[in-house]
Amino acid sequence: MTRWPLPEPMLQALAEARKAADSGEVPIGAVIMRDGVVISTGRNAPRARHDPTSHAEIEAIRAAALALGNERLDGCELWVTLEPCAMCAGAIVHARIARLYYGASDPKGGAVEHGARVFDQPQCLHRPEVYPGIGEAPAAQMLRSFFQQRR
Amino acid sequence: MTRWPLPEPMLQALAEARKAADSGEVPIGAVIMRDGVVISTGRNAPRARHDPTSHAEIEAIRAAALALGNERLDGCELWVTLEPCAMCAGAIVHARIARLYYGASDPKGGAVEHGARVFDQPQCLHRPEVYPGIGEAPAAQMLRSFFQQRR
Repeated sequence: MTRWPLPEPMLQALAEARKAADSGEVPIGAVIMRDGVVISTGRNAPRARHDPTSHAEIEAIRAAALALGNERLDGCELWVTLEPCAMCAGAIVHARIARLYYGASDPKGGAVEHGARVFDQPQCLHRPEVYPGIGEAPAAQMLRSFFQQRR
Repeated sequence: MTRWPLPEPMLQALAEARKAADSGEVPIGAVIMRDGVVISTGRNAPRARHDPTSHAEIEAIRAAALALGNERLDGCELWVTLEPCAMCAGAIVHARIARLYYGASDPKGGAVEHGARVFDQPQCLHRPEVYPGIGEAPAAQMLRSFFQQRR
C-alpha cells in the first residue's frame, strides 16, 4: 500500500492532538491557515480550562479571530483531526471558514456527515468546502489508544 | 389581554440583550441559574470581542463553568432571549444544562425547533428540558427595532 505524506497542516493538527493527550484531554487538534501561513492552533482542553466549549476548533477559531482582529475568518481554512460536532460546525459557519479539512469521521458526535448535518440545513448561512479523511488513520488511532488506556 | 409578569431570570436576560444593543451588537442576552441563584450572565458581543463564538449563551456558559470550576453545569438552567443556534445548542449539550428557557423562536438561525434540531438527533448525548416562548414578545421586539434602526 502506497502511503502519501500528510499535508503539513494536518501533521501540525495531529501534533496538537498529541499535546492534548499528554495533558489528559481527549486528543483532538486543529490548525487555521490562510494563504499557506499558520494563523492559529488549538487543542481540546475542557477539563484543564473548566470550559465545555474548549474544543480544538473553537480554540483555534477564537485565537485566529483575535489575531486577525476580525470575527470573520474569510479565506481561512481549518484543519482538524476529527469531524466537528454541532457546536464546532456552528462556529465554523459563524466564522465564515472557507475550507474544512478533517481526519477521522465521528458517527457518535460528528455533525458534518452525521447527526445534525449543520452545513446541509437549508437555513445554513455559509457552507465551507469540506474535505474529509485526510489523516484519518493516525487521528483515529490516537483516539483509540487514549480511550483504551483509560478503561 | 392579561399580561403575566415575566420570570425574573428572563427579565435579566432581556436587560443583558438591551446592553448588547447599546453597544451596537445584536440584542441577545442570557442568564444561568442554579437553585434560584444567578451563576452568570452573558450577552452577544462578537464584534467588540473579535470572537465569532461570542453569543450570549456561550459567554454565560463559559463564565458559569469558570465560576463553578467545572466544565459540567449539572442542575443549571439557561435563560436566553432567542432560540439557540447550532453552536449554542451544541454547547448546551456539552455543558449538560438541565433546563433551557428561551424567548423568541428563530426560524432562520435557530437549531432547537428549526434547522439542525440538535437535541432531536438520536446521537445527542444530553437533552435539556426545553421551555420556549417565555418573553417572546419583548425579545422579538428588541431584535426588530435593532435591525430597523440599522437599515
